[in-house]
Amino acid sequence: MKKGIILLGSTGSIGVSTLEAIENQRGEFDVVGLACRENGQLFTEQIRRFKPRFACLFDEKRAGTVDFHGTKSLTGEAGMKELLKAEAEIIVNALPGSAGLNPTIEALRQGRVLALANKESLVMAGRLVSKLAREGSAQLIPVDSEHSALYQLMEGIDRYEIERLIITASGGPFRNLSREELGNVSAEQALRHPTWRMGKKVTIDSATLMNKGLEIIEARWLFDIGQEKIEIVVHPESIVHGMVQIVDGSVLAYMAYPDMRIPISFALNKGQRRKLPFGKINLVEAGTLTFFAPDTDRFPALKLAYRALEIGDSALITLNASNEVASSAFLEGRIAFTDIPVLVEEALSRHPYAKEIGDVETIWEIHGWAKAYLEDHLRRVDA
Amino acid sequence: MKKGIILLGSTGSIGVSTLEAIENQRGEFDVVGLACRENGQLFTEQIRRFKPRFACLFDEKRAGTVDFHGTKSLTGEAGMKELLKAEAEIIVNALPGSAGLNPTIEALRQGRVLALANKESLVMAGRLVSKLAREGSAQLIPVDSEHSALYQLMEGIDRYEIERLIITASGGPFRNLSREELGNVSAEQALRHPTWRMGKKVTIDSATLMNKGLEIIEARWLFDIGQEKIEIVVHPESIVHGMVQIVDGSVLAYMAYPDMRIPISFALNKGQRRKLPFGKINLVEAGTLTFFAPDTDRFPALKLAYRALEIGDSALITLNASNEVASSAFLEGRIAFTDIPVLVEEALSRHPYAKEIGDVETIWEIHGWAKAYLEDHLRRVDA
Repeated sequence: MKKGIILLGSTGSIGVSTLEAIENQRGEFDVVGLACRENGQLFTEQIRRFKPRFACLFDEKRAGTVDFHGTKSLTGEAGMKELLKAEAEIIVNALPGSAGLNPTIEALRQGRVLALANKESLVMAGRLVSKLAREGSAQLIPVDSEHSALYQLMEGIDRYEIERLIITASGGPFRNLSREELGNVSAEQALRHPTWRMGKKVTIDSATLMNKGLEIIEARWLFDIGQEKIEIVVHPESIVHGMVQIVDGSVLAYMAYPDMRIPISFALNKGQRRKLPFGKINLVEAGTLTFFAPDTDRFPALKLAYRALEIGDSALITLNASNEVASSAFLEGRIAFTDIPVLVEEALSRHPYAKEIGDVETIWEIHGWAKAYLEDHLRRVDA
Repeated sequence: MKKGIILLGSTGSIGVSTLEAIENQRGEFDVVGLACRENGQLFTEQIRRFKPRFACLFDEKRAGTVDFHGTKSLTGEAGMKELLKAEAEIIVNALPGSAGLNPTIEALRQGRVLALANKESLVMAGRLVSKLAREGSAQLIPVDSEHSALYQLMEGIDRYEIERLIITASGGPFRNLSREELGNVSAEQALRHPTWRMGKKVTIDSATLMNKGLEIIEARWLFDIGQEKIEIVVHPESIVHGMVQIVDGSVLAYMAYPDMRIPISFALNKGQRRKLPFGKINLVEAGTLTFFAPDTDRFPALKLAYRALEIGDSALITLNASNEVASSAFLEGRIAFTDIPVLVEEALSRHPYAKEIGDVETIWEIHGWAKAYLEDHLRRVDA
């Protein structure tokens, strides 16, 4: 029998790769539902090709740009809720930003297999999400290449054997710039990532290393491990994605070409690895792998993530929301690249503190506070 | 309750490391028996320190050089047999050369946990040894760093997910020499290995890359996998020891500092990894890892190992025995370094062929034939 899939965020880069992975296993999956925010043209093509029973365009105002081809058409928040009720074993959450949180919680409450590409679910609500994943019948499989790497490595390792988890960072496009040069980089320069092709927000996060800060937070919740046991290592070749250091001093490493179809295929197949019709990694071709310590003076985002984890759940929500606002402001040319972590730090120092948060309402409240606070702060600075 | 251990080959480099690993877990192991070939002085110290119930010196003529301190003293082949009857859960076979074969078979027949460092057991009798390990209640755990690496990686992987196994080679001390220069290297030069400190025979095998040839053969039997799925990659830093390529193109790698106490500790603890009181690998310190294809024209030993696997069991025995004779002849200054693989090839081309060999008698027969043939051949060349 075919496995039913609901794909949220189908027109983004992870969404497109997911549909490619599904095509590679034609006959094994049934695309039950698709959802995207606003790219009507690509969404129309996807609907024609995959013939889902449900298709949801989140941005109601753009509904006219989609040809639903007779598929049950849904829109907005209400449409998303209805879509998530459809029968399907697997839900792929590739929504960008905080929009991914509620569907993650819903999918876990319903006991589905959740292939999770949305970072914010774990950054904003790690305590709640990991509790739902542990207690219910749901299965949470990360789609991020780094967390998929760690997840796969940990399958052969007992918990007490783990000394620490190591997440690699390409170092981003500005790895070799001085502090002064970093102050002058443009949004255009920041959008040119050396190894991965991704959405705008993620690419900026990659340049500030906030991406890695968020990944430390995700790993902390996903693997229920203290932040002091999670380390970032800069590895410009982006071939090693994650490593686990064992108490005996050895290290298990996961290597793959930077192609999201690999972790997506792993998640879609519920942790089974399938033959894929593209490049197998060849270390002789790769030739050289290098590793460096990250410079947290030039890239303070890492320090901020560790600090937020120490402070508590409210700080994680604030870090994420303020980083969203600051990154947008940088993309709009309103602030300098080096202002991003300064603004996040500003929000962290003022935020309404709560050590442990277990309900979604409080999460959204603090999220809203942080966005409003920083937007207001920026307006005052602009004026 | 303490786990009983019998250690065969206690005065060699693996034996000494094994005793260090045992000391690191004081109180968990009971050294029931020790055996070595001839190093009476070190053996006397070990007996005083570990107070085994049985101690066996293989070379009967040197029995006078050992002070047994009241321990039950044994000598020769008969002593070894008696030692192996002693009650002990774990047998560590770190005997050098073909002397390791019979104890391996005996340990597996008795259903013990066999920590196997003796390469020849699997090279000469892989079919028989792997059959005994599969069918009985024994547990075979490799102690070689490369095979321990593969063994550990494969714990989290299903068989059908494996694309190929990759074993790394430091490349030995002559990695960058031309064919001509290789013809002129001395035994002294060959004994200076860049990363590992080992016995003489193993160090010569490391210089010819026959070491890796033997490891391909061991891996073929240990993991029941075709030789076309086993690859050698030159990795001069000796930090990655083994890798498993997955059918989805990714690679899981095992890294550790070249310290035999790590795989020994893994084997002694029956596949559990324990905290070790020495260097944890640090990739930032290591900095750079490089990978090259091996040059099988300058180092034909690899080709010979693959060919022997294709020919059949008789060829594996012949390869091993003729390599022993040829390496000794090189150490004695009788032949050039580049003659070693030529002589192995000579023996392979003349040997009494048998595709599958399942009994020890035939193995020893062919082993004897190959040694006698090549010694005779060398005498004729010398004359």
